[in-house]
Amino acid sequence: MAQELVIGIDIGGQTTKCGIVDARGDVIIQTVIRTDTYNDVAPYIAELSGALKRIIAESGSEGRIRGIGVGAPNGNYYKGEIENAVNLTWGGTRTIEFAKLLSEAMDGIPVSLTNDANAAAVGEMTYGAARGMKNFIMITLGTGVGSGIVVDGKVVYGHDGFAGELGHTCSVRNNGRLCNCGLTGCLEAYCSAIGMARTAREWLDMSDEPSALRSLDKITSKDVYDAAKEGDALSLKVFDYTGTMLGQAFANFIAFSAPEAIVLFGGLARAKEFLRGPIESAMNASVLPLWRGKVKIVFSQLKESDAAILGASALAWEL
Amino acid sequence: MAQELVIGIDIGGQTTKCGIVDARGDVIIQTVIRTDTYNDVAPYIAELSGALKRIIAESGSEGRIRGIGVGAPNGNYYKGEIENAVNLTWGGTRTIEFAKLLSEAMDGIPVSLTNDANAAAVGEMTYGAARGMKNFIMITLGTGVGSGIVVDGKVVYGHDGFAGELGHTCSVRNNGRLCNCGLTGCLEAYCSAIGMARTAREWLDMSDEPSALRSLDKITSKDVYDAAKEGDALSLKVFDYTGTMLGQAFANFIAFSAPEAIVLFGGLARAKEFLRGPIESAMNASVLPLWRGKVKIVFSQLKESDAAILGASALAWEL
Repeated sequence: MAQELVIGIDIGGQTTKCGIVDARGDVIIQTVIRTDTYNDVAPYIAELSGALKRIIAESGSEGRIRGIGVGAPNGNYYKGEIENAVNLTWGGTRTIEFAKLLSEAMDGIPVSLTNDANAAAVGEMTYGAARGMKNFIMITLGTGVGSGIVVDGKVVYGHDGFAGELGHTCSVRNNGRLCNCGLTGCLEAYCSAIGMARTAREWLDMSDEPSALRSLDKITSKDVYDAAKEGDALSLKVFDYTGTMLGQAFANFIAFSAPEAIVLFGGLARAKEFLRGPIESAMNASVLPLWRGKVKIVFSQLKESDAAILGASALAWEL
Repeated sequence: MAQELVIGIDIGGQTTKCGIVDARGDVIIQTVIRTDTYNDVAPYIAELSGALKRIIAESGSEGRIRGIGVGAPNGNYYKGEIENAVNLTWGGTRTIEFAKLLSEAMDGIPVSLTNDANAAAVGEMTYGAARGMKNFIMITLGTGVGSGIVVDGKVVYGHDGFAGELGHTCSVRNNGRLCNCGLTGCLEAYCSAIGMARTAREWLDMSDEPSALRSLDKITSKDVYDAAKEGDALSLKVFDYTGTMLGQAFANFIAFSAPEAIVLFGGLARAKEFLRGPIESAMNASVLPLWRGKVKIVFSQLKESDAAILGASALAWEL
């Protein structure tokens, strides 16, 4: 039987989503495992390959898998390695030969790997909001802030395969928050889901302003979103602050690659009713006049799990 | 006779350099005119086309010119236009159909146009310090701060042809200097030749520190350089400050396109003995650990006039 299926895997800080994709781009079966319950890569690979073999068996896909595409934080397209992935419990400062390890665990099925945000960009270009665009920047707002940059229809990998780490451009030069990467003031430290929740907690600590968030033990970005939807003033201000910082950063990104659009994706991007306004006004106030009002802010319309799986799977077709 | 020659033109804020280039990449004749003595484009084009016709006649090149390549601030590769070139006295906020106007004045010789920094990047890639590199960023430190970004061997033009305006990324978010472009805090407002001279003047005003610069009426970046070479402490600190700001900005640029090197070019880049140290230490302190110590800072070895003319001329071969 022809090998007419591919597997797409999206490795996030908390969960790993994987699915089998057919040639039409339909996800025929998918599953999720935890990413963050392992301190070493070996048991994680064992769990992941077990899950893949289960969905292969369940869908009757034995012998039909042409290849596996993986989107992972700090994934290196050229080398198939994950390096310095500080957002992964089993990542740390090591270099992990991930593609090789997974291929071995999957009885030799070839594996291709890239940055999770690059994979999402490919998914969005092939199936989503960036269809037909040749120049756009994908920003993923999740546990971290990731990015995939597409220039002239191709993902920018750079000299070493690691291009597109816009979450670690500097937003606050002096006295900025410490980021997971070891630097201070990174965009990610403010505008990831975790960064936004931290903003809310800091503001609650620093003021007496009443807020629905005060009754909660542990505040997440979803709590801030839910409170904002109920009209909670402090939560709305947290979104304004986060969106303004994103818009200011986007103005710098535009000066780099002059994209047609910036596409937002990931958990936090669901809050588009609160983010679009401050992003657009800060971006247009901070960008060179020639781009003012010209660069679209687009929110992904793909289901988050689908886009990431589809994007990663697109790598596998090239194997 | 075959049309085996091209013309390269580099339009800077103060002077315009032009030359005739043969197929081996030798500049066989060149000349310079002022850019900044015209308030309208028509007399400038008249002067420029007159100068070109003189060097064509002098070198016996009549009928042998295949095309003209132009590097200009805010030059649009796709449209052949100069738009919003606030650093040009005849630019301003207008859109100038420059390629069309120059071609008409030159009896129909075809004209291709791009950003001056993009042209310099092509020149550096073809003949200079970036030979053999497929991913690098060219930064021009002149009247302004320009940039040309090369990804996978090709200049990044972006959706609209204006990509690579890194001089107008934000270096100072709050209370930054007003830039020529109308924004505040731009890299160009601090790290161009004009920005660096302004730093020196501000520091002289704000302190009583003795300095050789105090005896001068009007301080230019060249005065700061000359004083630094004599060991003037304030001038050396101005270079430290300028280099640090460049290095911090470069760290952000690296996160975008992961270049093999950043190539510095232009008048201010001659001061490499004072800039390299602070650039490298600020860049490596501000960049993601994975790139620390890995991205080369390279100073152009080409003669400034040659590189710009050669880069612009490379466009003309494609006509």
